[in-house]
Amino acid sequence: MIVNPSRTIAELKELRSLTADENGAQRVAWTDTWLKAREWFTSKLVGLPVEHHYDAAGNHWITLPGVSKRALILGSHLDSVPNGGWLDGCLGEMAGLEVLRGFAETYNGRPPVTIRLVDWADEEGARFGRSLLGSSAFAGTHSLAADRGRTDKDGIRLEDAVRRRGFDMDRFPEAPRERENAAAYLELHIEQGPVLEGLGLPLGVVLGTKGVERHAITFHGQEAHSGSTPMNVRRDALAAAARLALEIRSIAGKHPDAVCTMGSVKTFPGIVTAVVGRCEAALDQRDLDAGVLAAMHREAREASERFAQEERCTVEWSRIWSIEPIAFHPSLISFCEAAVAETANTVHRMPSGPLHDAAEVSRAGIPTVMMFVQSLKGISHNKIEDTREEHLELAVRAFANLAARTADWILSGGAGLRPAI
Amino acid sequence: MIVNPSRTIAELKELRSLTADENGAQRVAWTDTWLKAREWFTSKLVGLPVEHHYDAAGNHWITLPGVSKRALILGSHLDSVPNGGWLDGCLGEMAGLEVLRGFAETYNGRPPVTIRLVDWADEEGARFGRSLLGSSAFAGTHSLAADRGRTDKDGIRLEDAVRRRGFDMDRFPEAPRERENAAAYLELHIEQGPVLEGLGLPLGVVLGTKGVERHAITFHGQEAHSGSTPMNVRRDALAAAARLALEIRSIAGKHPDAVCTMGSVKTFPGIVTAVVGRCEAALDQRDLDAGVLAAMHREAREASERFAQEERCTVEWSRIWSIEPIAFHPSLISFCEAAVAETANTVHRMPSGPLHDAAEVSRAGIPTVMMFVQSLKGISHNKIEDTREEHLELAVRAFANLAARTADWILSGGAGLRPAI
Repeated sequence: MIVNPSRTIAELKELRSLTADENGAQRVAWTDTWLKAREWFTSKLVGLPVEHHYDAAGNHWITLPGVSKRALILGSHLDSVPNGGWLDGCLGEMAGLEVLRGFAETYNGRPPVTIRLVDWADEEGARFGRSLLGSSAFAGTHSLAADRGRTDKDGIRLEDAVRRRGFDMDRFPEAPRERENAAAYLELHIEQGPVLEGLGLPLGVVLGTKGVERHAITFHGQEAHSGSTPMNVRRDALAAAARLALEIRSIAGKHPDAVCTMGSVKTFPGIVTAVVGRCEAALDQRDLDAGVLAAMHREAREASERFAQEERCTVEWSRIWSIEPIAFHPSLISFCEAAVAETANTVHRMPSGPLHDAAEVSRAGIPTVMMFVQSLKGISHNKIEDTREEHLELAVRAFANLAARTADWILSGGAGLRPAI
Repeated sequence: MIVNPSRTIAELKELRSLTADENGAQRVAWTDTWLKAREWFTSKLVGLPVEHHYDAAGNHWITLPGVSKRALILGSHLDSVPNGGWLDGCLGEMAGLEVLRGFAETYNGRPPVTIRLVDWADEEGARFGRSLLGSSAFAGTHSLAADRGRTDKDGIRLEDAVRRRGFDMDRFPEAPRERENAAAYLELHIEQGPVLEGLGLPLGVVLGTKGVERHAITFHGQEAHSGSTPMNVRRDALAAAARLALEIRSIAGKHPDAVCTMGSVKTFPGIVTAVVGRCEAALDQRDLDAGVLAAMHREAREASERFAQEERCTVEWSRIWSIEPIAFHPSLISFCEAAVAETANTVHRMPSGPLHDAAEVSRAGIPTVMMFVQSLKGISHNKIEDTREEHLELAVRAFANLAARTADWILSGGAGLRPAI
């Protein structure tokens, strides 16, 4: 299949000039700039033999009908975080469009299997704190009751922001209809981490997305005057939290791919003249193995209780959010390996720490795999996010190779078989 | 000298009912409630043979002229923090009034030395962040240029708040005129810490106020995605700060009365999905010995640099504020010991961790001492701040005893002699 990766790069730059300012990409879901990106994207469909529509949850579907109704879905998202990069999400979308063009051209507008391209709505959750909104509606894992009342920093409700763009959260449960005939799902994304760069590799095969345990942890000590309270009678909530901030590194360190992050610490009253009486910390733990994840969560909890006791404090845990590890489809993983090997000669398998829409699609039972392309310095969600252009070109070629292999597999009936591993 | 401690307690309760709400005392300097407290206090002067006026910095001076112009000054403050307690500041003020009454009664309105009572303006600095405002103007250590532009949370300038109450910061440099004939200064205060309660003692002799080194410490690491950044490549600014938060306990622990407090930690971006790229901490270190204080500051700085290096971060220090240790006058310390011993049988010498107006008066070269009375649970700046009534009564009696001894000393010319120690 013939693809033109330099066109993809040119289109990504065009999108950037249209939707970024001096602080980076501003395609936050449900905003005018996001709509502008979607309109621009739609303009790229002119002349292609495709049908396109928005589903009930605001996901944009482009369909190139094939001889078989069984569909290979390629997908990603055009929305960004505020002050985001030029590749996160839109690389996958524009590469998907290029591959769809390749199928259309190769098969004179009618490929053997149906090719669908999806632009998921609100992957980032940047404005309302609910990521994977559109893909979770598609997967049927969307929790309407909890999400419709979410508000942004100006107090606007998610439900109202969605309605303003012509969608109705009451109709989100209709989104799973798009799963009909879905045979496989592929997603290309920048790594957003430093692993591939560290290994000197352009591309990676993604084994699945790590499960996440995300908790708010509050240590309660005793606020006391900084000047008048002897060290030995203090009940310093910050000290207990500081011990946990260090201990999570040992907890994660026992497992090769595990990560534990204390990303936020808040001190109360938070003034220099008072011993910290209350310390609120947020802990994020991730691993691809559910057993490892559960063990890490248990160990962090036990450590926090030990530190609280030793510091004469108490500790409370409250789950913010969690998701189980999602393993991608073994056959698709092997196709991804073959595609990467053929394009870039070397193969590296890795879990994804960040979540992606692919996790929701996989949860819906659709065979799924992702491909990563190297990120420079591992930086994303930032205007300096970048990837070498030669790596972007390799990525588009390898993704096309993967798509072709997967289409063959669908055609051969393979998608119905889920090999036991 | 005859004093009536139960009257002091009754007056403190009267003041509380007038100026506290369900959240505690609300006598924040320069507010209407503070003025109400000052008016109420002035009403208590009716019938006493005193002159009273406000100096250029808003300090309220009540003078009972004596045979000698040499003046014994008793002082404290009526202002409080928001949601403060019923004793912080006003105990010393009302006990001072009771002692002044005692002098007036004992000597038929004309004691051998002049007795002055001062209500310092804005001791707490609660609204504009500048504590000891009035007493530092008196001492001549006031830094007008830096302070006049301070603003409260509503953006109101200190200078304007002061002017609204009839004072002019341009005239603050006139406040030191009140130092004329000042021979000694005495201040009674609640301990605001747990030491006396821990020892089972009602009263303490204060040796001086600890010096303070107060710094903002910023660790710079690298913001990175919580999910995609392996543990071993992180540059976690929180980890460096957490290590310092724990290390300061060892640093303080080498010295019997030293304290080190990390009262505030702020994480940036401060979200659970990102490794902390920048961590801002505030460190407060105190000791009565200038050498110890300097050593503690140096050790904390060295430790922070070591941790920064080991965590592949950088660290910056910026001084927020500092004050040297202030040792009180040895003769007055011995009178305070005698007064406490005579009233309560047991004596305990201790430094004050919190600062007090007495520190500024001492810096002005006026022989000074303070007496502490036990605080329950060491809690202050809070509506639950409390002291047993029998201890308050002992405190008023011991303070009167100290005042009488000090007046005798002034009369004997002792105040002119500053013994070498």
